[in-house]
Amino acid sequence: MLKSLKEAVYEANMELPRRGLVTYTWGNVSGIDRDRGLVVIKPSGVDYDELSPDKLVVLDLDGRIVDSKLNPSSDTKTHLELYKRYPDLGGIVHTHSPYAVAWAQAAMDIPCYGTTHADYFYGPIPCARHLTDEEIDEDYEKNTGKVIIETFDGRGINPMHTPGVVCASHGPFTWGKDAAQAVYHAVVLEEVARMALLTRQVNSSAAPAPQNIQDKHFLRKHGPNAYYGQKK
Amino acid sequence: MLKSLKEAVYEANMELPRRGLVTYTWGNVSGIDRDRGLVVIKPSGVDYDELSPDKLVVLDLDGRIVDSKLNPSSDTKTHLELYKRYPDLGGIVHTHSPYAVAWAQAAMDIPCYGTTHADYFYGPIPCARHLTDEEIDEDYEKNTGKVIIETFDGRGINPMHTPGVVCASHGPFTWGKDAAQAVYHAVVLEEVARMALLTRQVNSSAAPAPQNIQDKHFLRKHGPNAYYGQKK
Amino acid sequence: MLKSLKEAVYEANMELPRRGLVTYTWGNVSGIDRDRGLVVIKPSGVDYDELSPDKLVVLDLDGRIVDSKLNPSSDTKTHLELYKRYPDLGGIVHTHSPYAVAWAQAAMDIPCYGTTHADYFYGPIPCARHLTDEEIDEDYEKNTGKVIIETFDGRGINPMHTPGVVCASHGPFTWGKDAAQAVYHAVVLEEVARMALLTRQVNSSAAPAPQNIQDKHFLRKHGPNAYYGQKK
Amino acid sequence: MLKSLKEAVYEANMELPRRGLVTYTWGNVSGIDRDRGLVVIKPSGVDYDELSPDKLVVLDLDGRIVDSKLNPSSDTKTHLELYKRYPDLGGIVHTHSPYAVAWAQAAMDIPCYGTTHADYFYGPIPCARHLTDEEIDEDYEKNTGKVIIETFDGRGINPMHTPGVVCASHGPFTWGKDAAQAVYHAVVLEEVARMALLTRQVNSSAAPAPQNIQDKHFLRKHGPNAYYGQKK
Repeated sequence: MLKSLKEAVYEANMELPRRGLVTYTWGNVSGIDRDRGLVVIKPSGVDYDELSPDKLVVLDLDGRIVDSKLNPSSDTKTHLELYKRYPDLGGIVHTHSPYAVAWAQAAMDIPCYGTTHADYFYGPIPCARHLTDEEIDEDYEKNTGKVIIETFDGRGINPMHTPGVVCASHGPFTWGKDAAQAVYHAVVLEEVARMALLTRQVNSSAAPAPQNIQDKHFLRKHGPNAYYGQKK
Repeated sequence: MLKSLKEAVYEANMELPRRGLVTYTWGNVSGIDRDRGLVVIKPSGVDYDELSPDKLVVLDLDGRIVDSKLNPSSDTKTHLELYKRYPDLGGIVHTHSPYAVAWAQAAMDIPCYGTTHADYFYGPIPCARHLTDEEIDEDYEKNTGKVIIETFDGRGINPMHTPGVVCASHGPFTWGKDAAQAVYHAVVLEEVARMALLTRQVNSSAAPAPQNIQDKHFLRKHGPNAYYGQKK
Repeated sequence: MLKSLKEAVYEANMELPRRGLVTYTWGNVSGIDRDRGLVVIKPSGVDYDELSPDKLVVLDLDGRIVDSKLNPSSDTKTHLELYKRYPDLGGIVHTHSPYAVAWAQAAMDIPCYGTTHADYFYGPIPCARHLTDEEIDEDYEKNTGKVIIETFDGRGINPMHTPGVVCASHGPFTWGKDAAQAVYHAVVLEEVARMALLTRQVNSSAAPAPQNIQDKHFLRKHGPNAYYGQKK
Repeated sequence: MLKSLKEAVYEANMELPRRGLVTYTWGNVSGIDRDRGLVVIKPSGVDYDELSPDKLVVLDLDGRIVDSKLNPSSDTKTHLELYKRYPDLGGIVHTHSPYAVAWAQAAMDIPCYGTTHADYFYGPIPCARHLTDEEIDEDYEKNTGKVIIETFDGRGINPMHTPGVVCASHGPFTWGKDAAQAVYHAVVLEEVARMALLTRQVNSSAAPAPQNIQDKHFLRKHGPNAYYGQKK
């Protein structure tokens, strides 16, 4: 069942330790089959070197487990909220990669300081606010998803143009058209978070990149007039 | 004698260089057999690539060597003080991992800035005070243990909920239910120390994580209502 | 056609990931055959582990593709402007290496703080200004090259004595007598950028190295009285 | 001739890239045979992966080449000055390791912030002053050695208790009883320089370790009452 999606989500999960984004089990990747409405996600607390495609958990968008002997990632409900709200999302990643966590713990947006950022994220990478006591008590992981949605919808940010967020006092979530691209964006977000921190160390009052450069770089990679890369 | 404990303590010691926590011989791991009251610890100043289970030192809680041709770690008395005071400790680690050392050398607690920290350490990781001239002269390593105990008992910190400390101008000690978990906590403490430093670089007046998030994350991994990971 | 140049440019491109200077496809190297007036450059957006000498693009100095099935690097016109203006350049590199990017994003020259810098770069490594709206709209990549030239010519900097630049809000370009030396300078620029940042972290008001040391170190490696290394 | 010394100096040189202390050829190790008054040193500008024991240069304390087809390291005269002044030195290392360079470029002593430092270096690691124009013109490398000696002798520092220095705007030199120990001290100096920088990032007004801890740690590893490690 969902053999190729499981294989893809497995590969995307294994890319996290290869890229140095996770310590121990601190990360998870999911992917979705939109036709069937089924999500495949990493089981909770399983070491990456013990993971295999058949250990992944399959569940529907209401969180009902369809196929698994293991508990799904404790962050599953956050993934589900995002899949339900944004139909273009095909894969989602959560990590505790250290530079992204630093911005999350500082509770600050990551400003767009240059073209490395602008090539993949249009505008600042937003920081989602802390949850209230009520939101934590009611359903922490589900409300984490809702606060991410509030951030994007409230600020008018297109999640396909800015495919990631840092959650205050927690860490980053990224996404993409599939699980592999979501991991790619997790790598980029971490590198951009590191460069932004280094930029402020060079000049604590550094300004974001001028808007014209942000537009130019985003649009040479995205949209109808993109000219980066090879024709597909 | 104590063959399986020696094997476990050996494996835990070898994990330190694999995880990048030690330069040369700057670290040691011990484990205890509570039934026999015997501790197994790394010998002093022996290179990790020359270590083997049979080179580990066995001694009782009064520090009398029971089985060894080699001198035990110079930090042995610190380990023994902690084992004697806290009966739940099964393994102890000391390293000079650089980010934890930075906080120790700054003589400051590591604030809980986020969920990576809260998942493993409840509240700040305390900094134990400097020893007095008398304490150093009388018995430096033993009194290092006593000052750690003074820190936890004096501040009402449960060492099983906050399984580590940084000693002022020195470095970290961590512990756990066994030697392997003590090493796991040494890795987490170093990563958390690094993230905390990066957080302050992003925002020098960053605030600790709200108490409700600290509670939520610690309790979803610990205690009767924990739901992270798989049922054991 | 241009077999040995393609081989050399291929090897120089592959050195970028080996030296840790690129994430994914964020870098490109070119080389020039001055006799034929032909440039060999990496194709756009191709992964390094899928690159081979025959996938490199050959074009003339006006940007006409002479031999290729693939699109050239999106930064090609920047390379061409530099080759046309400076006849001593034999190879050019562009990367997004993080410490060089930090100075670019801070829009600041990298001061010459010491001998590591002075051994290879005479004086500060300049930061080229932001492009205007008109320059971006007219031809972004070509005008990036023109602004680099404006920086060197306007400030009277000899590009063979200072073989690199950081472009504001973007990243570094380096060059040399051939593609291999251009990569060598990319590695040095990144290391020098890192050391300069660390220097300011130790002492935020650190002064550049005295001029006499800068002269001594540059001249013991370059010019008629150089005495570093072996006679060739 | 000097076969075992050449072998030892070769091994010590090769340890520099293994320990991550050098980029390209930015480092050199020498060793001395005190009975014969002969020094073995790395040739200038030779890549580490092309080095072999027979390529090392043998010269006397006046710098006369005794056995070599290659030029010696450009820093040779600095080594010779130190060997002539301090008869206990058996090996010397120079690198451009980045954290030590940061302190050199900031032209500051590295304070002793903790026990990692105190275990190997008694008191701050001094920064040797800039050379004057006359000193540079007369004999740059020889006078670099003389300024190091002025620093130690002028401040009453025992070079066997503080086996290293950072030279302003340049980088570190370390030494030991032989070439291997000199490299060991180069590794420690770099790690200590890094920890000191991180300490100031945590707390910009961090104080050096209390003198009693510095004394305790240095003396538990050195001198007649040392008790670290195994009896030799």
